[in-house]
Amino acid sequence: MNALLPLPRSLRRPAEPGMPIAEVETPTLLVDLPALDRNIALLASYVQNRAPGVRLRPHAKTHKSPDVARRQIAAGAIGVCCQTVGEAEAMAAAGVADILLSNQIADAGKARRLAAIAGQSRLSVCVDDPSQVALLSDAAMAAGVTIHVLVELDVGGARCGVLSADAAVALARLIVGSPGLVFDGLQAYHGRAQHLRKPSERQAAIAEATRLAAAAAGQIRDAGIACPTITGAGTGTFAFEAASALYTELQCGSYVFMDADYARNERDDGADVPHFEQALTILTTVISTPLPDRAVCDAGLKAMSLDSGPPSLQLYPGLDYAGASDEHSKLTMHSPFALQVGQKIHLVPGHCDPTVAMHDWIIVHDGSTVTAVWPVARGW
Amino acid sequence: MNALLPLPRSLRRPAEPGMPIAEVETPTLLVDLPALDRNIALLASYVQNRAPGVRLRPHAKTHKSPDVARRQIAAGAIGVCCQTVGEAEAMAAAGVADILLSNQIADAGKARRLAAIAGQSRLSVCVDDPSQVALLSDAAMAAGVTIHVLVELDVGGARCGVLSADAAVALARLIVGSPGLVFDGLQAYHGRAQHLRKPSERQAAIAEATRLAAAAAGQIRDAGIACPTITGAGTGTFAFEAASALYTELQCGSYVFMDADYARNERDDGADVPHFEQALTILTTVISTPLPDRAVCDAGLKAMSLDSGPPSLQLYPGLDYAGASDEHSKLTMHSPFALQVGQKIHLVPGHCDPTVAMHDWIIVHDGSTVTAVWPVARGW
Repeated sequence: MNALLPLPRSLRRPAEPGMPIAEVETPTLLVDLPALDRNIALLASYVQNRAPGVRLRPHAKTHKSPDVARRQIAAGAIGVCCQTVGEAEAMAAAGVADILLSNQIADAGKARRLAAIAGQSRLSVCVDDPSQVALLSDAAMAAGVTIHVLVELDVGGARCGVLSADAAVALARLIVGSPGLVFDGLQAYHGRAQHLRKPSERQAAIAEATRLAAAAAGQIRDAGIACPTITGAGTGTFAFEAASALYTELQCGSYVFMDADYARNERDDGADVPHFEQALTILTTVISTPLPDRAVCDAGLKAMSLDSGPPSLQLYPGLDYAGASDEHSKLTMHSPFALQVGQKIHLVPGHCDPTVAMHDWIIVHDGSTVTAVWPVARGW
Repeated sequence: MNALLPLPRSLRRPAEPGMPIAEVETPTLLVDLPALDRNIALLASYVQNRAPGVRLRPHAKTHKSPDVARRQIAAGAIGVCCQTVGEAEAMAAAGVADILLSNQIADAGKARRLAAIAGQSRLSVCVDDPSQVALLSDAAMAAGVTIHVLVELDVGGARCGVLSADAAVALARLIVGSPGLVFDGLQAYHGRAQHLRKPSERQAAIAEATRLAAAAAGQIRDAGIACPTITGAGTGTFAFEAASALYTELQCGSYVFMDADYARNERDDGADVPHFEQALTILTTVISTPLPDRAVCDAGLKAMSLDSGPPSLQLYPGLDYAGASDEHSKLTMHSPFALQVGQKIHLVPGHCDPTVAMHDWIIVHDGSTVTAVWPVARGW
């Protein structure tokens, strides 16, 4: 990057350590550190106790934060997943030793960037097409590194991934025969299952994903190719993958922060699945109260993603969410609840991952005071 | 900002001038500069010809770009509107001489930042509550500057703004009596009218807004207070405000870029209103084609806002948009249309403003080659 060129102005930090939360500029992404640490410890101990052979590889697309990744690894995670090359670069630069890009790349520039990461950390990446294998092999050879490769199998997500065990075997053979590459196994992540509301629906979806992944892994092994890794799972389903006796890695991401949409999943309280806390909020200031029942605050579409529904006002009985525009949210106040102009409140985002990606900084607090300011690895 | 602290990694530029578009890393925000310049010239000449006394003050919340603002001002705009203090700081730093923050601020920190801007540029800001007036007066006095203040009137937007002419008069009196402040007039922007589909609906909404604003301005003048400015209008309605003989300023923003949602507005071709071109696209790479009719590309919820509907594939007959996730869009291909892995295509965002706010850089091109890289003033 040419340092003489003008920079975006997004580097202004909205708070500094030691500042009371009430003085933080808004709209701002806040993370409750004690709650975050409890979520990290809870999942780590669940996996260690219930599925001792299964590795935890939390998804960094949720937080895009090397600081959060370090805490997950200190609690026992073997590394992280990333969804973008930019995230993987940030994690490698921070010293994360084992990174899975749980996604396909399809151009030579990104393959070169991945090869550079593979010179620093153990790097694996997914494929579902022979052209991706060729790009990765060329980049690995040019850089003199080894890239680990997983075949993505579509186990119900209906997005990327090969659709048959035969196709998985063919790609595995191609990887094995490609210089610079090592075949690691299968990515078998079922994204659509994460937000099925009923535990029984999620369980059935993961049972089918497990059946498909087991069949593909079996055919790959029958072809004489080792298939050590089966990776997948998310915050909504990990208990089922952990109990599958097939999956070797869990990719849960949202559990560190949680959001209003995950909170709508029904839980099976008999199943003893960890209950994660809401650690992420958007701090916003009331800028207008034009009517006795209407307040307007300064967090809108540009400060939080509404793709999975509006933010929750669960912390404020007496307030309803009435709509968002670019830089505003409208709130309906039920008497005797009355917000004042200048008052700051916390919104719980509908969907944590894309909300985090709108912010450059995570403001970390202990409930009353800012304790750290962490950068977000935005961009691709 | 402490330069020793780690920075977000969002400063990586996805392209450099001279690069062919086909080599630009994705997902990336692209602007067609000839189309942008035609849009800027078209609105400027319309206003100069049809409403010669009316000032054009384009809204910078659309582009967050001092580079775009400079081109608008060179074409005759008197300055810009901003929606956030961060945007206003970026515009002032770039030398924009006249800035309206078309929004309320409600904390002392932001008031101090506004006062600092008022030391560089002519700065005006909206209020709808006495507490905001007190904050602004204190900050202006402390900094030894003058801040210009408009009373926002709710003319149908049902968001911020006072709801009666009496309340507008009371606030105008308060501003006139507050040291460091100058009363400029009324903000009478009707946001909800911009996306009413039929020209007749938009015309009726602006007729009512004009009636309300005229009544409030009349009462303010009857109270012996000058009310020189009536500011409002957007890309969907500006022809009506321009013809109102009341509005003195037009705030159109989206016209520079356009989007799929504005393209759904019906036009009244008899009215000779300018037809703006689509200048903004998201460049995305096809990363997977797992089925003959399914392609997956690398621009998802984190690269474009879906709040006003999905992106348009108007440039590609034979492709339908089938859904977004965080970092992916699924496309349905109708035979014989067939995308290849690695191919790059342009999506037209559903809503330009929040899409731009997700990106750190605007990649400017001439249809085939990158000609400039402009920073986006993200953050608040």
